[in-house]
Amino acid sequence: MTTHAPDGTLDRTHPEACTVGVDFGTLSGRAVVVRVRDGAELGSAVHDYRHAVIEERLPSTGAPLPPDWALQHPADWREVLRTAVPAAVADAGVDPGLIIGIATDFTACTVLPTTSDGTPLAETEQWAARPHAWPKLWKHHAAQDQADRINALAHARGEKWITRYGGRISSEWQYAKALQVLEEDPELYAACSRWIEAADWIVWQLTGSESRNTCTAGYKGIHQDGTYPSTGFLARLHPGFADFAATRLEHPLSPLGSRVGGLSPRAAAWTGLREGTAVAAGNVDAHVTAPAAGAVENGRLLAIMGTSTCHVLNGPALCEVPGICGVVDGGIVEGAYGYEAGQSGVGDIFAWWLRQGVPEDYRAEAEAAGEDLHELLTRRSAAQPVGAHGLVALDWMNGNRSTLVDHHLSGVIAGLTLDTRPEDVYRALLESTAYGTRVIVEAFESGGVPVEEFIVAGGLKKNPLLMQIYADVLRRPVSLATSEQGPALGSAIHAAVAAGAHPDVRSAAAAMGSVRRHAYVPDPGRADAYDALFAEYRLLHDRFGTGTDLLLHRLRRIRNAARTAAAR
Amino acid sequence: MTTHAPDGTLDRTHPEACTVGVDFGTLSGRAVVVRVRDGAELGSAVHDYRHAVIEERLPSTGAPLPPDWALQHPADWREVLRTAVPAAVADAGVDPGLIIGIATDFTACTVLPTTSDGTPLAETEQWAARPHAWPKLWKHHAAQDQADRINALAHARGEKWITRYGGRISSEWQYAKALQVLEEDPELYAACSRWIEAADWIVWQLTGSESRNTCTAGYKGIHQDGTYPSTGFLARLHPGFADFAATRLEHPLSPLGSRVGGLSPRAAAWTGLREGTAVAAGNVDAHVTAPAAGAVENGRLLAIMGTSTCHVLNGPALCEVPGICGVVDGGIVEGAYGYEAGQSGVGDIFAWWLRQGVPEDYRAEAEAAGEDLHELLTRRSAAQPVGAHGLVALDWMNGNRSTLVDHHLSGVIAGLTLDTRPEDVYRALLESTAYGTRVIVEAFESGGVPVEEFIVAGGLKKNPLLMQIYADVLRRPVSLATSEQGPALGSAIHAAVAAGAHPDVRSAAAAMGSVRRHAYVPDPGRADAYDALFAEYRLLHDRFGTGTDLLLHRLRRIRNAARTAAAR
Repeated sequence: MTTHAPDGTLDRTHPEACTVGVDFGTLSGRAVVVRVRDGAELGSAVHDYRHAVIEERLPSTGAPLPPDWALQHPADWREVLRTAVPAAVADAGVDPGLIIGIATDFTACTVLPTTSDGTPLAETEQWAARPHAWPKLWKHHAAQDQADRINALAHARGEKWITRYGGRISSEWQYAKALQVLEEDPELYAACSRWIEAADWIVWQLTGSESRNTCTAGYKGIHQDGTYPSTGFLARLHPGFADFAATRLEHPLSPLGSRVGGLSPRAAAWTGLREGTAVAAGNVDAHVTAPAAGAVENGRLLAIMGTSTCHVLNGPALCEVPGICGVVDGGIVEGAYGYEAGQSGVGDIFAWWLRQGVPEDYRAEAEAAGEDLHELLTRRSAAQPVGAHGLVALDWMNGNRSTLVDHHLSGVIAGLTLDTRPEDVYRALLESTAYGTRVIVEAFESGGVPVEEFIVAGGLKKNPLLMQIYADVLRRPVSLATSEQGPALGSAIHAAVAAGAHPDVRSAAAAMGSVRRHAYVPDPGRADAYDALFAEYRLLHDRFGTGTDLLLHRLRRIRNAARTAAAR
Repeated sequence: MTTHAPDGTLDRTHPEACTVGVDFGTLSGRAVVVRVRDGAELGSAVHDYRHAVIEERLPSTGAPLPPDWALQHPADWREVLRTAVPAAVADAGVDPGLIIGIATDFTACTVLPTTSDGTPLAETEQWAARPHAWPKLWKHHAAQDQADRINALAHARGEKWITRYGGRISSEWQYAKALQVLEEDPELYAACSRWIEAADWIVWQLTGSESRNTCTAGYKGIHQDGTYPSTGFLARLHPGFADFAATRLEHPLSPLGSRVGGLSPRAAAWTGLREGTAVAAGNVDAHVTAPAAGAVENGRLLAIMGTSTCHVLNGPALCEVPGICGVVDGGIVEGAYGYEAGQSGVGDIFAWWLRQGVPEDYRAEAEAAGEDLHELLTRRSAAQPVGAHGLVALDWMNGNRSTLVDHHLSGVIAGLTLDTRPEDVYRALLESTAYGTRVIVEAFESGGVPVEEFIVAGGLKKNPLLMQIYADVLRRPVSLATSEQGPALGSAIHAAVAAGAHPDVRSAAAAMGSVRRHAYVPDPGRADAYDALFAEYRLLHDRFGTGTDLLLHRLRRIRNAARTAAAR
């Protein structure tokens, strides 16, 4: 029962009109069908990537990959469109004719070299055997040297943009990764016509034509005040890199929520949606979640907490906050400066601790109680008075994204005694990530960006102990995004705007997003106790994380040298 | 087939003459029967203490004990004489008439209040309900405040003896523990006629008369240059403490290996040995091991490695080495200055890590291989190149005995990453204890006491990876005591001297002790790699262990305050 508008497009005012949001994560893609009137999530489906994260061997040749590499396979992403989208529509029981728009979000910076028509070099016969032809996943960390040089040069030349990124760009981003390609495989670099975020590449797959979104261009592509870094700057990094931005990146930017095209015949066949369905500009999984979680207004800090945490926050003015990931005009929503920060390990750290094992009787206890081990350790540590375990940990087991921007840091646990139990360390690790968040919140505030509300989305919002710890450590209420699939819902909201069902992202967010305000409130006694422990965290943080010739850096160097020598 | 000498004593020159050594440990007592001619260990037996370590509730009343208390039951010790000694003799298949001497060694400072006839106050009807009536085990750590005040006063008054103890006496020792009794239960203190090391108390039980040995008097009783601390000093600690040494301790000292009496009729009945059998002066488990392990000559550092490590070392001259436990003239063997140092957690730390659990597949692997988990993690980490785990730990999970003398310190692990595995931490903990030993060895050498050989006794000498790590970290060969029961053998050696079978401990040690010299030698490449890691350990050690207002102290205070508040 589809109603068409006079121009042949679907009726964007139909009370049952829906959009599809597709969230491309690290291990899977998820599609959700959402009613544009009220944000009701009518159906969803997930597709696990067949190749997941490629870290060991190149799929094409089986050749081993160097340390710190992380790739993905474009076919896996395409498969999400072919399987998860139709499955979500079927799950919703909605006539595909009612789907008026589709939008996607992606991990970032996940980036790939393509031909001029968007064909991934990894999928060409000529280049598939070359490791650098393959999409580099966000957590590809082998371009740290390049990032270090980019940062040093930017500071040496006083590049204005560097302060927009907290003073340091990451090895995860477009320039560092592209420079690594140029330096390690110049032939392949020469064959790369376009260097494109997967976020934009997937939109190219949907529409048949190239687009570039303001979000990834700003946060990952160093696009500031209308331009990329200058030719002169790039030439100083490497003569062959001078024209990188002008040749591989250059393309008009599409604002978030804008319609960049209609669904191509090919993509319509993949997805089962109608040809010409509105397709929105690409977006990043974290940023796209803000409208889903009632977090588009200035001062609402949204923490998307899962294996890692990404923080997004809008502010009215441009401030330069040391150590954050970046600030981009319209990077989250038009009309505000979008700030991003992050913690590179959160849920991953808790899972790491469980991977060390638990005592046999704990395992039996969890089985008897029908709990997983996270639930068991959470329950066993929940009743502890603050500080009773005597521990403080640094949450750097996966490096530190904000505010130190240093992936060569590593974790520290202090205060261990012979009566320290597994749940003590577990709780200390939960707390350490809360301290890490507090450092970020304080950096925003002291940098001039007010934080008026703290909202959590992502899988970890389901852990009540963790949420209470965050409330106590931050001395602020913790609000929770209502949806269990924030990024996909956020994409569906952007799709509704692209389809014209809502005039802009703010009003679409008001209609379709939702948040449970102040789900957790701080307890003054516990907050006081955490103030004392946070002071110790801060001290360790500064001792181990700042200065030159850091002990943790030396340990990393020793480790890498030992491993490299052993591999020879 | 017993041969008696003309004076009625046993023939000490009989080729099959034996002695019994009895080692009183923390959880059990072990007796061994040794042939005096060659040190052959003919039989042994162990008796586990029924009350083990009393930390939760007083046996007499069931009343809960405060934190950091650790007591023992005198009946358990007596039971060792009654069961383990006859069982060892039976195991040896030796005619009791061939046993010419018995000697004992004990944990120290394990100390108890008794009446003037040696009856433990804990075994009197009047006092048994009072916690302070009970023997305080060496690891009773509730007298830290008293120790702190003793140290502060000693430095303030410039007491000459304080430098003999590395500048700090321990809360484990006689004065701190006795002062705690006086301050917390003055009535009981008044009823205490004698304050005596269990090492001397057990000899009192054997002979029926009191004796005091030079070893515990020196190391734990602050007996130096022929005297105890002065009345003036003691009065400044507490007016009622002024006569402590003169009343509760004063007794002529018996040198090590001397015969302090003959076996009493009662003790002969307990043990099945002949009345009048020579009984040697008491001794400490660590120190008594030196003659068993070929470690009586100057410069041979003996590390008795088990749950904790005790280091004993003889030197030709009196040196004041900061941070060691003590130096006592004749404290290990007559004619040398005996030095003692220690690490308060070693095997305990490795066991602690296993108590955190191991992954399920590790457990299955160990079961399939018929290994215990220590063996599994040792095997899994043995092949790693030095430094490949990227970790450095501080081995202070049970505080630091030498050279920081600080039981309020706690453990630190640095360099953790998401790919850190259980065997990585395990190996880092093995290494951390080797670094701790190196600090001690370097303290001796820079303090003027040469270390020419490093010898290991105790259960941990059976871990080849650990021994190799020690050789590599110390850049010296590691020699191993041959006997599996070093302290008991050492006691048997002292018994042989007391019985007159050997003229002195040195010659008895030459005949009866043995060592496998240079069982492990350092690998130059690994030793170089460890030099770099030891430098990082040293840095952490100094950062966390020295100075005022230490972070780890604050964590401990926060912990204790939180626990105390919760217990209210």
